[in-house]
Amino acid sequence: MRLSTRNQLRAKVETVTEGEVMATVKVVLGDGQTMTAAVTREAIHDLDLSAGDDVVVLVKATEVMLGKE
Amino acid sequence: MRLSTRNQLRAKVETVTEGEVMATVKVVLGDGQTMTAAVTREAIHDLDLSAGDDVVVLVKATEVMLGKE
Amino acid sequence: MRLSTRNQLRAKVETVTEGEVMATVKVVLGDGQTMTAAVTREAIHDLDLSAGDDVVVLVKATEVMLGKE
Amino acid sequence: MRLSTRNQLRAKVETVTEGEVMATVKVVLGDGQTMTAAVTREAIHDLDLSAGDDVVVLVKATEVMLGKE
Amino acid sequence: MRLSTRNQLRAKVETVTEGEVMATVKVVLGDGQTMTAAVTREAIHDLDLSAGDDVVVLVKATEVMLGKE
Amino acid sequence: MRLSTRNQLRAKVETVTEGEVMATVKVVLGDGQTMTAAVTREAIHDLDLSAGDDVVVLVKATEVMLGKE
Repeated sequence: MRLSTRNQLRAKVETVTEGEVMATVKVVLGDGQTMTAAVTREAIHDLDLSAGDDVVVLVKATEVMLGKE
Repeated sequence: MRLSTRNQLRAKVETVTEGEVMATVKVVLGDGQTMTAAVTREAIHDLDLSAGDDVVVLVKATEVMLGKE
Repeated sequence: MRLSTRNQLRAKVETVTEGEVMATVKVVLGDGQTMTAAVTREAIHDLDLSAGDDVVVLVKATEVMLGKE
Repeated sequence: MRLSTRNQLRAKVETVTEGEVMATVKVVLGDGQTMTAAVTREAIHDLDLSAGDDVVVLVKATEVMLGKE
Repeated sequence: MRLSTRNQLRAKVETVTEGEVMATVKVVLGDGQTMTAAVTREAIHDLDLSAGDDVVVLVKATEVMLGKE
Repeated sequence: MRLSTRNQLRAKVETVTEGEVMATVKVVLGDGQTMTAAVTREAIHDLDLSAGDDVVVLVKATEVMLGKE
């Protein structure tokens, strides 16, 4: 399935931290920069996500902000 | 100012495309992966954004999704 | 690819309206209710979206609000 | 009050799962498709949400993505 | 209708700027601080929004970030 | 760093409520209206946020909805 979602970055899962209904996932990009995703705990189980997994980070273009010094 | 925003990636602006009220900005990360931001045209002018600028890409953790093969 | 995105609804495209950088797409669900997506114009061209297409509507759970009478 | 929010779907609550600060709510649309909302626990109590409630699912158009096979 | 949306601020519309599919609306809060909303052009017409209108600004809690010096 | 983020409001923290991975923060604006932010627990610790702190509330324009009576 092709997605309208403009941002699709290859990354690797570092850690998964589960709360009661939400979870945070830390991933590393190819250049060593890290990202954090806050998703539902259910999604973690559905995707069987754990450290070391290769994933695609998805972000809609309207959610991306920019900062400039 | 420190931000609660968990995702802050260093990138360089490739292109800025302006519409009447919105604009899209393409940036390149350190590992060559690209991202697209859809922001207001006003923000482009406020930050005086143009190709070649060093920027920080900001994404709130709750906006990040994950995909797994 | 399996997605963490909790909301994935089958729908059919009714209309695509393109602006200079953004576009709106109206779709119909199985029960006749309609939804509107505001995506980048580039995404429309990438997916070659037009009226009559079968699509999947994707919404992250953290983006869903509820109202109650 | 009329809302700028483009997506307003009639649905019925199936389950409410509460965490310490967040909660997830599963609802069913008229055609049997399900949706999940991740909202604050406070919102659950404010709206006195529970299984069987008729609700309106609200999603801003800029939050809707599309996928196509 | 009561909404799960945690942020509902009273404001007055200052300007409406319409593009082809999107529009930006500037509003002023009670303490003089301004906010900008990027909504679909269709929403502007549906709500018949124009300068001087009393409105409620709505923002989901998961969309709010914080900065600290 | 200048941000593309259009909405930056001065506020003061009233309460911080921490869950296992998420947290909610209540703040008060200059005119007494309150706002709630749902952020990661990690962000709370990174910014060392607590009641009484002066903060800036940040919301991307594409996340702002409007209601009109």
